[in-house]
Formats: sequence, C-alpha cells, structure tokens
Amino acid sequence: MCEDANAIPPTGGFKEVGEATNRNIQQNPYGPNPADFLSNVSNFELIESTLREGEQFANAFFTTEKKIEIAKALDDFGVDYIELTSPVASEQSRKDCEAICKLGLKAKILTHIRCHMDDARVAVETGVDGVDVVIGTSQFLRQYSHGKDMNYIAQSAVEVIEFVKSKGIEIRFSSEDSFRSDIVDLLNIYRTVDKIGVNRVGIADTVGCANPRQVYDLVRTLKSVVSCDIECHFHNDTGCAIANAYTALEGGAKLIDVSVLGIGERNGITPLGGLMARMIAADRDYVLSKYKLHKLRDLENLVAEAVQVNIPFNNPITGFCAFTHKAGIHAKAILANPSTYEILNPSDFGLTRYIHFANRLTGWNAIKSRVDQLNLHLTDDQCKEVTTKIKKLGDVRALNIDDVDSIIKNFHQDVSSPVIMPSGGTKFEDFDFLDGDLSNKRQHI
Amino acid sequence: MCEDANAIPPTGGFKEVGEATNRNIQQNPYGPNPADFLSNVSNFELIESTLREGEQFANAFFTTEKKIEIAKALDDFGVDYIELTSPVASEQSRKDCEAICKLGLKAKILTHIRCHMDDARVAVETGVDGVDVVIGTSQFLRQYSHGKDMNYIAQSAVEVIEFVKSKGIEIRFSSEDSFRSDIVDLLNIYRTVDKIGVNRVGIADTVGCANPRQVYDLVRTLKSVVSCDIECHFHNDTGCAIANAYTALEGGAKLIDVSVLGIGERNGITPLGGLMARMIAADRDYVLSKYKLHKLRDLENLVAEAVQVNIPFNNPITGFCAFTHKAGIHAKAILANPSTYEILNPSDFGLTRYIHFANRLTGWNAIKSRVDQLNLHLTDDQCKEVTTKIKKLGDVRALNIDDVDSIIKNFHQDVSSPVIMPSGGTKFEDFDFLDGDLSNKRQHI
Repeated sequence: MCEDANAIPPTGGFKEVGEATNRNIQQNPYGPNPADFLSNVSNFELIESTLREGEQFANAFFTTEKKIEIAKALDDFGVDYIELTSPVASEQSRKDCEAICKLGLKAKILTHIRCHMDDARVAVETGVDGVDVVIGTSQFLRQYSHGKDMNYIAQSAVEVIEFVKSKGIEIRFSSEDSFRSDIVDLLNIYRTVDKIGVNRVGIADTVGCANPRQVYDLVRTLKSVVSCDIECHFHNDTGCAIANAYTALEGGAKLIDVSVLGIGERNGITPLGGLMARMIAADRDYVLSKYKLHKLRDLENLVAEAVQVNIPFNNPITGFCAFTHKAGIHAKAILANPSTYEILNPSDFGLTRYIHFANRLTGWNAIKSRVDQLNLHLTDDQCKEVTTKIKKLGDVRALNIDDVDSIIKNFHQDVSSPVIMPSGGTKFEDFDFLDGDLSNKRQHI
Repeated sequence: MCEDANAIPPTGGFKEVGEATNRNIQQNPYGPNPADFLSNVSNFELIESTLREGEQFANAFFTTEKKIEIAKALDDFGVDYIELTSPVASEQSRKDCEAICKLGLKAKILTHIRCHMDDARVAVETGVDGVDVVIGTSQFLRQYSHGKDMNYIAQSAVEVIEFVKSKGIEIRFSSEDSFRSDIVDLLNIYRTVDKIGVNRVGIADTVGCANPRQVYDLVRTLKSVVSCDIECHFHNDTGCAIANAYTALEGGAKLIDVSVLGIGERNGITPLGGLMARMIAADRDYVLSKYKLHKLRDLENLVAEAVQVNIPFNNPITGFCAFTHKAGIHAKAILANPSTYEILNPSDFGLTRYIHFANRLTGWNAIKSRVDQLNLHLTDDQCKEVTTKIKKLGDVRALNIDDVDSIIKNFHQDVSSPVIMPSGGTKFEDFDFLDGDLSNKRQHI
C-alpha cells in the first residue's frame, strides 16, 4: 500500500478536459459576507510557520540548508511573514535564525519565543523583523505548565514587549490555549498589551478543538477591545483548522498562521494549501494578486520530502483526485461547464482536471466525449449502447483507459464496417478482456 | 517516500505516557452551545456513504464481497444508516444492493437515486429501508445537467415521493448544489416535499465550498420552514467539511453524511473519523454510547486497503502523529496532565500517546521522565545537563530513541561511578555517535 500521489494519475481511465469558454460565475455565494463589516476575508495576511510550528512535527528535522531552501520557496510563493523556531531552543536554531535573516527575503522574518526576558534578549539579537511572544493563559497551562498567575503573566508581558519595542522591531503577544482561558482574564491582558503598543495580539487554539461560531464570537469580542491587528493559530485535531481560520477572518482577524501541509505538533495546524483553496473560493482576485499558487505543488513536495511524508490522497488542491470527476451525472455536467461541479479552477494552480470514465458509474456523455477524442463517429444511441457494454465490464472488475478505448474502437468497427463472419466464427466480445492478452487484442483494432 | 502510517511509530524517540489519574476537565468549552436551542450536537445520526459517495472516489472498485465486508464493519461500528449506490448504476450495483439488504444489519439500508420514476421503481424493489432522492436545483445544474425548471423538479419530486411512501419505506428529498440555488426556490420545494411527508430533506454542498456561518444560516432558516429532519452533505474541496457538519448540527440539522476517510467525488466529503473527533470533543458521552470508536482504526484500514490509499499522515485520530507531542513545553505539561495539550483521549480510540523527546526541541522534563523510565537516578540539575547534551546532538542530525538512551546511560555512568582514566585516555563523547558503531557502544554501557 504505497503510492506516490504526486507522480501518478489515478487508476482507471481519465481524460483531460479543456477550459470551458463560458466559465463565468455570475455570483459568488462563497465570497465575503457584506454583513461582516469587520471582515478581512479580502485583506488577510499569512504567517508561515513551517520552520517553527512545522519543526514541532514528529518527523521534522531540518538542516540549515533545508531551512534556507524552504524559506526561499515560501518567500517566492509570497507569504507575508516567515516564523522561525526560538533561538534559545538550541544553538543551531539560533544560528539558523540569523542565517535566514541575512537572506534579504521580501517576507518579514519572525521568531517565536516564550514570554520571558531570557528568550527576548537572545531573539532581538538575531536580526529578525519581529518577535512572536506566547504564554499559556488557561487554567490547565497555568497549573501544569508554567505555574504562574495572571498578574505574573501581565508583568512579564509588559517587560518583554517594552524591551522588544525598544529595539524597533515588531512584537506580537499571544495567549496559548485561548479557548480554555477565562474570557475576562483574556480580554484584560489583551487590552493591557494593546495599550502599550503591540503590533498584533494572537488567539491560539492550542489543543485544536475550537469550533467556527466560537471562533467568530471570540474574535468579534476581541476586536471591540483592541485596536491592533489580530492573528489566529488553529490546530487541526478535530479537523476544523481551515474553517476556523476563515471564520476568524470574517470576525475581523487579519493574520492566519499556516504551515505547508499543516505540519506541526500532533496532526498540525491550518495548512497553507487548504487555506488557499478556501480563500480563492472567497476572493480569487485578492489571492491571485498576492500568492503564486502555481508554485504550491512544488512547495508541498519540497516539505513533504523533507519530513518524509506523502501528500495525503485527499489533500485540498494537490491531492491526486482533487480535480477528478467520476459519477455519470457529474461528468456530463462538467463536460458542459466545469463550474457545475468545481468551485476551484485547477489551472489557477497549474493543474488539470480529469473525467474518470472507465468505471461502472460512468455515463454516456462522458463516453461520447471520449469517442470524439478518439476521432471516431457514433450516434448518441450508439454511444449509449457502447456505454452499456463498458458498465457491464466495469461491474466485473476495475477498468483502465485501454479497456474502454478497446471496447469503443471495437464497437465502432462493428457498426461502421460490418464484417461478414463465417458461422461459428469468433467475435470480439467485452468479456474477452477478462483473461485475454489485451495488448494483442488492441493490435487487431 | 513510502510509509505505512498504520504500522510504524514515528521516527525519533518516543515514550508512552500513562493515563493521568487527574484527567478531569472541569468544563467543556467545546460542548454544545446552550444558546442553540435547536442544536442536535448531542443528538445526531450518521448516514454512512462509503458504499455510495465512496464508490465515486477515483480509486474505488468494490467487489460484492468487499462491499459486504465494509457494510458489516460499518454496522458493527454503529452507524445509523448505510447508503448504497443506485441500483440503476449497473446490473451488479442492483444485485449488491439486494445482497446487503438481506444481511439483516442493525443499520438501516438506503439507496441513492435521481429524482425519477425509472430509478424509484427499481430502488423500491431492492429491499432497502429507505430511498435518498436527489436533484440539482442550482442554476448551473439546471442549465448544464438535467435542463429542467423548478416546476418540473417539484412535479417529479411529488410523484417519486408519493410512490416511495406508498411502498412503506423512508424517503429523503435533497437538492444538489444547495448553496448556489436560489433561496426562495429552495425553501419552496423543501416546504412542498415536507408537506407531503418526506422523512428528511437534504442540503448538499456539492462543490465543497460552503463556509460554516453560511451553513448555519441556511440550516436555521430551513428549520423554520420544515418539520421533518434535516440531513447535510458536505464536500471537502476547501477543507471545511467537518466544520460545516458540526455547524449544521448546531443549526438544527440532525443527520450528517460521512464516508470512511471521507472518500468520494474529487477529494471527498466529511470523513467519519474526523467527525468523530469533532463530536467527541463536544459530547463524549453521547458519542461513546453510540459508536465503537476503538474500531475506527480497523475500519479505516479496511477501506484504505480496498481503495489503495494510505491513511493521511495528518488524519484526525489515526494519523501517525495525532497523539505525538514534541516541543519541550508541550511535553512538560502533557507529563503533568494530558488535558493540557489534548482535547481527545487516545484511549477512547484504543490508541496511545507519545512524547517525542529525541530531538533538539526537547526539554528537561521529558528527559527526566525518560531517565525515570530507564530506572536511573539523576537530580534535576543533572537532567538539565544531559538535556543540553541531547539538544547539542539533535542540532547536528535527527535522533532516535537509542541515541538518547545511550547519552543518558553514559552520562549516568559518568556521574554515578566516576572512573579514573589514564591521562590521554578516550572518553565517551556525545559526538561519537555520529560516525561510530552505535550498537557496539551501547554494549559497553
């Protein structure tokens, strides 16, 4: 059970479909909601954390060279910020941070530290454009992680923030496990740090379990308390990280933490590619103006190889079947207009759509289209007849494109130039394919 | 780049962590929202569609035997309904449908057909408990798929529904591409079919792009129009299928369509496992009372093998790293109380959590815990010292558990029984591991 989802097309028969000329979506029901006057759906920024959160992924070990390669690729893609592991995590982490700061990338470079002066003093010397500070504010983390109370947290935050600001670089203050923190404590500390001038405050669903309406409520409330930007960080333990990010933007958050393929602690955070899928459906022009989407696939492959995972078969956009249409009624409509069953345009990502017609769920429209592609001529009734034959074989076993082409070509030969066969002579039948040597058979056609 | 995510543990050193006895979550901020008086978060049902939607997955070809094996496994897991491919899709599809109906499963068996009497007449003869009828209602599908207007749709719907009801079996009417359909047309036809007594109406995000707040609004509105149950079907093109399902339940939907691993058209629909993760975080008692979660992994493996895909590395619950904790501050807190960084309890799924301590992000609490596991005795200061050594090697290359154990054991030997070494004598140093023969070195310890 091993599959390189990037290299191979799906099994079975597929056919590329050209762009329909009439691909005009008159309205976009998935766009920004006009009622959300604070929405940043058309004005969001990305904090790319493959080199911080992603380094916390179980399989991740990035050499300096690999970090630089990934940072350059992220910059080329167009991310707004690149977040790096704390320079106090290890000596090499500090050196790598310095090295990436010296690359002269367009993206701003951040490092992510605990809310502590020991960390801050090291961070500001690395050359970063900004520092992301985090501290656990939930009862759980206060009790079992750092053991500090909210007063201590506030004091540390003020000290660290003023120090980082004095160095003239950006500062973000984030709570950790925000959704299990006391709402009053949380708003209190956010207002405190906003008043002393942080660039951003962060909300973090550290355990990965917030749900969208909860996110919307918290962001909207926070938006009424602070004047700085709001950043959000969502883990994906219960599969809501993309939806939560989108809903946070609707509520007025401006920045979303992402990583390539979502790699991070446990099963990770909001994935860059998945969020791109979500956002391009909402505001295609904005997304295309900022990000080089056709580089997404290479970027994902780069990181997947570095951490030794496969691209998930069902990955948004780049999963091997993301643009594959199979059922008969789907194929029929896609052939008429791709927008019927596609909200994303594969060509925006440098990808292609497929119609899977070699299976028992196929329909005669898909087969007729294949007949045309083969430059053969059959009437609609004949297409329906040959479709029945294909479905019959598809009931018996998995088909590939050669099976279908052979059935079509044989059928075409039979109907266009009937051969008078001697009584008892063999005739090419569908089920000959089952055990026969297909390649020899094809030569006869 | 090939990995069997089911069989192997993550690379690097990990350690199982016992259940904390104080795992008490005093409050559940992820539970049902008391303000949602129509919410079915604690009262939902599953329509499992691996054998219908899942058959539309590019790689799917299920033999009769495999269909029966999957149906039995789904039934054992506890799903409420099992949905099967239309009996008119092919001759074998009809026979398979009949065979599964005869199994005498606890789950109700459904088949999924177009809104047409030709299909309905065949469906009611298969022995199913219910029929799921679908028709495209969006402008796109009306124009490019079936070419019918809303009056025609309503007439067909009434005819099919009354026919199916006359046979004494359940009937669901669903629109297709509901979120791009005219809201007035949509509510109109739902009210019509509700009045003539359908069991359920269905909302389908066929192109996979609805967002949660949009879902909530539509479900709430529909809830005010019909008295029957509401079923929802979400594709995952933009990664929101789990969140949309949850939000639909909050808005008053009762049934969610799922498939194992989410397999279906394109990149699929709401996955069974991911939805279980989402729902157990909201109402653990309800989920555990209905579904055998410890069978999830086997069920996913069964289907993954049948359609020849790997379990995605980042799959909720069963992804190889879903319960792996790596960063130092995470590990420290997890050791004190797993609820700090886990909203899901791996033992609910028959799984285990891991602390990844063999890497440069490790912390001394994790190492101290490993020291205890090895039955060695080091002070806290000594643990910090050996942690520094481990992080130093972790800066140079990826580590595995043997590396860390060797460093610890060597360090322990040095500090507990100092050996007087001749001047110039070699001493076991961290970096000896880099090129040396590790297995020989370990024997000396």
